[in-house]
Amino acid sequence: MTHNIYDTPDFFREYSRLERSQRGLKGAWEWPLLRSLLPDLSGKRILDLGCGFGCFARWARQQGAGSVLGLDVSRNMLERARESTSDNAIEFRRIDLEEADFLEDSFDLVFSALALHYIRNLPRIFNAVNRALREGGCFVFSIEHPIFTASRNAQWIVREDNAKTWPVDSYSDEGPRTTDWLAKGFTKQHRTFSTVINGLVGAGFSLTKIEEWGPTAEQCANRPDLAEERERPLFLLVAAEKRGATTGE
Amino acid sequence: MTHNIYDTPDFFREYSRLERSQRGLKGAWEWPLLRSLLPDLSGKRILDLGCGFGCFARWARQQGAGSVLGLDVSRNMLERARESTSDNAIEFRRIDLEEADFLEDSFDLVFSALALHYIRNLPRIFNAVNRALREGGCFVFSIEHPIFTASRNAQWIVREDNAKTWPVDSYSDEGPRTTDWLAKGFTKQHRTFSTVINGLVGAGFSLTKIEEWGPTAEQCANRPDLAEERERPLFLLVAAEKRGATTGE
Repeated sequence: MTHNIYDTPDFFREYSRLERSQRGLKGAWEWPLLRSLLPDLSGKRILDLGCGFGCFARWARQQGAGSVLGLDVSRNMLERARESTSDNAIEFRRIDLEEADFLEDSFDLVFSALALHYIRNLPRIFNAVNRALREGGCFVFSIEHPIFTASRNAQWIVREDNAKTWPVDSYSDEGPRTTDWLAKGFTKQHRTFSTVINGLVGAGFSLTKIEEWGPTAEQCANRPDLAEERERPLFLLVAAEKRGATTGE
Repeated sequence: MTHNIYDTPDFFREYSRLERSQRGLKGAWEWPLLRSLLPDLSGKRILDLGCGFGCFARWARQQGAGSVLGLDVSRNMLERARESTSDNAIEFRRIDLEEADFLEDSFDLVFSALALHYIRNLPRIFNAVNRALREGGCFVFSIEHPIFTASRNAQWIVREDNAKTWPVDSYSDEGPRTTDWLAKGFTKQHRTFSTVINGLVGAGFSLTKIEEWGPTAEQCANRPDLAEERERPLFLLVAAEKRGATTGE
């Protein structure tokens, strides 16, 4: 099983205090943008990779989704997810996404919020997701943006005029990046943009739309501390569709 | 007609001294990668946007291309391009790409090397390129990478340990960026990654492959001064295909 920082007490305590943990989807700045990439959920069979506290699963059912299977490696998070609902059309299961495989041709939508940047073998999971989807099915996910993950010294640089600039270095060198986010030794995988895009195309997806989250003017007005996030893109949001056999390569 | 710095004497003199101006395609570091995105050129009708000295047009004909129409706004560059060949299947024409339109359904490949980051209205030219291509035709181009163009203070930052880091700021704020490259007041257009990708999809293209140029180990061995280019991606290279009516949205 992959090392899973969400089950270490210090990290989990700090993570639970985040706005997105306290307020659910509404506490995630990028949620309106991620939501805009989703298809109509009515009757859809949904797979949620890295389901966390199960907020998306519950919301999707409110939107009319037929069923949601939420997967996560964290016992802490799954425990809370299971406590949060008695809906029989939602199932939460513990699994290591690094090794997971899914029933073929079984889902209309695969969703994943800020989980795939922990995965070391990205082509493997892209291929598994493609197989899991029916033809024409959707894959919508968010990850930390390549610009955000690249540097080995990922901290704002403050210039003489007090303007903030974000460092990019080691961009071409993909692999683990360890920072001290919420706890020491938080590790994620840096990928280039081309690895993400070409991985999707290679696995049999057509790209539908991408978004790079920066705060809206309204968000900045309500939360002036967010304004600096217009300098760099923090998250990459992707919508793709499983290509049909006749239109594939 | 768009202001065109290539026809100002100081800039043109300096530009003519660049390795890529002296040595043609072989002098462009990203050429092997860009070439890898090209389809077989045999018999192809090719449109080259921003043809410069006409190096690509001559090379494409050597590869068996049926015809090449090269467009550029610079009188200086077109003059040299015309002097460089007497091939009747190559035509060079002066045009402002900002306003250009092309014959519909007339080309098998549209190529453009480091020209489209000067264009203010990117969706307009993407749509014009799509119309110019036959169904299934290819669009292969390079531009300066969004990571390279974003900052309003685009110079390497040297850290205390002498490591270089590239600044990213103002990423979400698209539009002109003026630097002093070769001459004062060199202006290009910063675009986000999502604007480029979504513009292509919206214009009727399927993305085939993208590349972000950083030097290979071999290039770094031959040219140690190139090593810093592994820190940031300098160029974005894109290959896309005109979607068929039956596979479109």
